[in-house]
Amino acid sequence: MRERRRDREAGLEGQLRTLKLTIEYDGTDFVGWQRQAEGLSIQALIEEALAKFEGSPVTVHGAGRTDAGVHALGQVATASMAAPHDAATIQRALNATLPPSVRILDVAEVDRGFHARFSAVAKTYEYRIVNAPFVSGFLHRYVWHVPAPLDVEAMRDASRALVGTHDFAAFAGAGSVVSTTTRTIHSIVWEAGGGFATPLVMRIAGDGFLRHMVRNIVGTLVEVGTGRLPPARMKEILDSGDRTQAGPCAPAAGLFLVAVRY
Amino acid sequence: MRERRRDREAGLEGQLRTLKLTIEYDGTDFVGWQRQAEGLSIQALIEEALAKFEGSPVTVHGAGRTDAGVHALGQVATASMAAPHDAATIQRALNATLPPSVRILDVAEVDRGFHARFSAVAKTYEYRIVNAPFVSGFLHRYVWHVPAPLDVEAMRDASRALVGTHDFAAFAGAGSVVSTTTRTIHSIVWEAGGGFATPLVMRIAGDGFLRHMVRNIVGTLVEVGTGRLPPARMKEILDSGDRTQAGPCAPAAGLFLVAVRY
Repeated sequence: MRERRRDREAGLEGQLRTLKLTIEYDGTDFVGWQRQAEGLSIQALIEEALAKFEGSPVTVHGAGRTDAGVHALGQVATASMAAPHDAATIQRALNATLPPSVRILDVAEVDRGFHARFSAVAKTYEYRIVNAPFVSGFLHRYVWHVPAPLDVEAMRDASRALVGTHDFAAFAGAGSVVSTTTRTIHSIVWEAGGGFATPLVMRIAGDGFLRHMVRNIVGTLVEVGTGRLPPARMKEILDSGDRTQAGPCAPAAGLFLVAVRY
Repeated sequence: MRERRRDREAGLEGQLRTLKLTIEYDGTDFVGWQRQAEGLSIQALIEEALAKFEGSPVTVHGAGRTDAGVHALGQVATASMAAPHDAATIQRALNATLPPSVRILDVAEVDRGFHARFSAVAKTYEYRIVNAPFVSGFLHRYVWHVPAPLDVEAMRDASRALVGTHDFAAFAGAGSVVSTTTRTIHSIVWEAGGGFATPLVMRIAGDGFLRHMVRNIVGTLVEVGTGRLPPARMKEILDSGDRTQAGPCAPAAGLFLVAVRY
């Protein structure tokens, strides 16, 4: 299949164009963005929907590989296609084909050199926590439920140590192969929530994130919020470069890929 | 079972107390509030959870019988129980037992004479519509998707004919036996929405509602919004008392029982 695609691309190069898709999904029922040997991925669903237009297999590249259960409000993906249909027609057809929990918010034709992952200069994620005795029946798939009272001011304080360019090895998930664990975090903002239906929201922006990095950061900051770690410990954990020093990985359900900047 | 309960109530009358429960639920996966021969009802789930405290069957009376797929932000129910546990303990235990899509927002001990249905003096419902080419992947279970542009001003205008005390037979669902189809609507308010993720909301308050009445009203008002019916037609439909004159029943997914006033 890969051979065939290369042949096709070589033969039709002049006619191929690059489409940029902006995608929203409720990640609850998926194995994640990326195609897996088993289970339903968002990438596979979109590739199959686009292949109907193209009449042959299409590969879609996402800006970030959200894990199983992680949501997106603004995932971005690119695809090279020969199909001549206009962007609005493709958007309409995809939304008619895809399950209702995956929506194509926008389709745009972009420069051939544009790549959803390699052209990205910054990403924003949100992590949502309900800090109350129980969680709204409408939110339980979209938050982490932390019943113990959280000191949000201490969490804000501890967050400051992470902003800037650092080696984030202490917050990197196991099993990912990357050339460097250095990343730049531009900002971390905590918006206070209240009660069972208004989550506490952490918004984090940076040039890129290691696997599980946002969830490991949140898991550690919640340890600070419950008083198990003092805020000053955050910098020591970061400097240690040791994953075993940081807190647990926060659940996937609370995480949203909000936007990708190019 | 009913015999046994009566005996028990007679024997323990002095010790029985009335609990008022305020309940939120995502109705998507249920056959509705009321216990049915088949399928999962919210009433049955709560009765079974309370029976564990009581050590014998408990009957729960709801303020309104929401249909299959209809949601609640503030359903109210009452139960007579002998169990001596305090309200907070019962609330905690119910939320630990019930599925996460059903939450007990409050438990309070009330006067013996209080009855969730017969003591209610007013109810408020909301109906949510996404009026855009597609619906957010996070909202599709909680709205009616109407892609055709709606003239909200015309719908507001048509709504005015319904406010006040009227015979609502033209908007009554088939198959319900009621002594009178006269009801008083206190107010209908439309909050404009915008785009795929911000629904247009109709909030309707009244002393009581016939089966399918809110959904039949919304179905008719949407006919006005799309221009298929002139706003002035609303009063004629109401006066006709004839269900076949009104528009179709709007989908259950968009309807929320918001609050019950006593």
